[in-house]
Amino acid sequence: MTTQRRTPQSARRSQATRHAILTAALELAGEVGYARLSIEGIAARAGAGKQTIYRWWPSKGAVLFDALLMLNEGQDEQSAELPDTGDLEADLKVVLQATVAELNDPRYSEPMRALAIEMLVDADLAAEFTERLDEPVKELKRRRLRSAQRAGQLAPDMDLDVALEMLWGPLRSRWLNRDGPLTTEFADTVVETALNGLRPRPS
Amino acid sequence: MTTQRRTPQSARRSQATRHAILTAALELAGEVGYARLSIEGIAARAGAGKQTIYRWWPSKGAVLFDALLMLNEGQDEQSAELPDTGDLEADLKVVLQATVAELNDPRYSEPMRALAIEMLVDADLAAEFTERLDEPVKELKRRRLRSAQRAGQLAPDMDLDVALEMLWGPLRSRWLNRDGPLTTEFADTVVETALNGLRPRPS
Repeated sequence: MTTQRRTPQSARRSQATRHAILTAALELAGEVGYARLSIEGIAARAGAGKQTIYRWWPSKGAVLFDALLMLNEGQDEQSAELPDTGDLEADLKVVLQATVAELNDPRYSEPMRALAIEMLVDADLAAEFTERLDEPVKELKRRRLRSAQRAGQLAPDMDLDVALEMLWGPLRSRWLNRDGPLTTEFADTVVETALNGLRPRPS
Repeated sequence: MTTQRRTPQSARRSQATRHAILTAALELAGEVGYARLSIEGIAARAGAGKQTIYRWWPSKGAVLFDALLMLNEGQDEQSAELPDTGDLEADLKVVLQATVAELNDPRYSEPMRALAIEMLVDADLAAEFTERLDEPVKELKRRRLRSAQRAGQLAPDMDLDVALEMLWGPLRSRWLNRDGPLTTEFADTVVETALNGLRPRPS
């Protein structure tokens, strides 16, 4: 009986410790950046032992990675598909405005920025990120664009990855380089410019 | 007379030393990355004294920076203006293909990538880069786009910085993230997609 009572209790305790560690990693990455993030620091902030962290994760990158996955999981329910009302421009504006909100939220943005910089020097981390976080989200975006292609709202021979770059690239660039304000107006301008192109259209 | 003979000689020697130091900085940044680049390493590679470097530059970032300016100066004569034949699409393809060639040239690309990553964590370095290297080049690009606006080839209310992002952003992103091949075909696709937009155009 004791063992049976203890098992769910210790599982709950493990869950709580895991959550504290991932939360601490997110907070610290935002505060000190990836380079100065350390397992020691995470352990101290989480009130956990260093050994506990090393038992569950091989590196600080792996901890931060799971922490960002945890943040993303909370959103999965409502955002497994991008909106598809049939109005491509309106739908894209909703989605890019949400991206802007996320990139302006320091809870997500600062650890994500720390990871983004580290990925530029660590090809393995970048490959893991691409596979586990980036590619699934990109596929949702491609799916919305394919639906628009079927509806005749996008050129049928469009290179979808170039299209994604036209839409999300300017947001990501402004976020990473911090070289301009990330506003909903900017998101709207990007959607309109990408859809209509730089050449004038007969109106 | 001795002094007079010595002065131009020592100026020539200084020039040669400066050139050796800047060349060594470029080579080493490409080989070991910015984080492991050191004044010691540059001095050893250049066959110069550490004190000489510290007398002329306050930091390794400043050395690398001047080294990249030196590379750029060599090109100034032929590229002070972007081509303007009146055919915007053709001109942009020429320019973006040149950008692709530059980004694929390790002599330029590797030290530039090292600097780009460092700028993401060093805001002062980023500001200096923007002022001395990036903004002058961007202004040349804006000038070409303004000429196209006057010719009715670009929407008159176009946000030119968003336009620049649509054109050069995808190249820069693929270069920085190393997540796809940087080819002339890619450059051409980017120019066509940015100019025409994602929506189909009546042909």
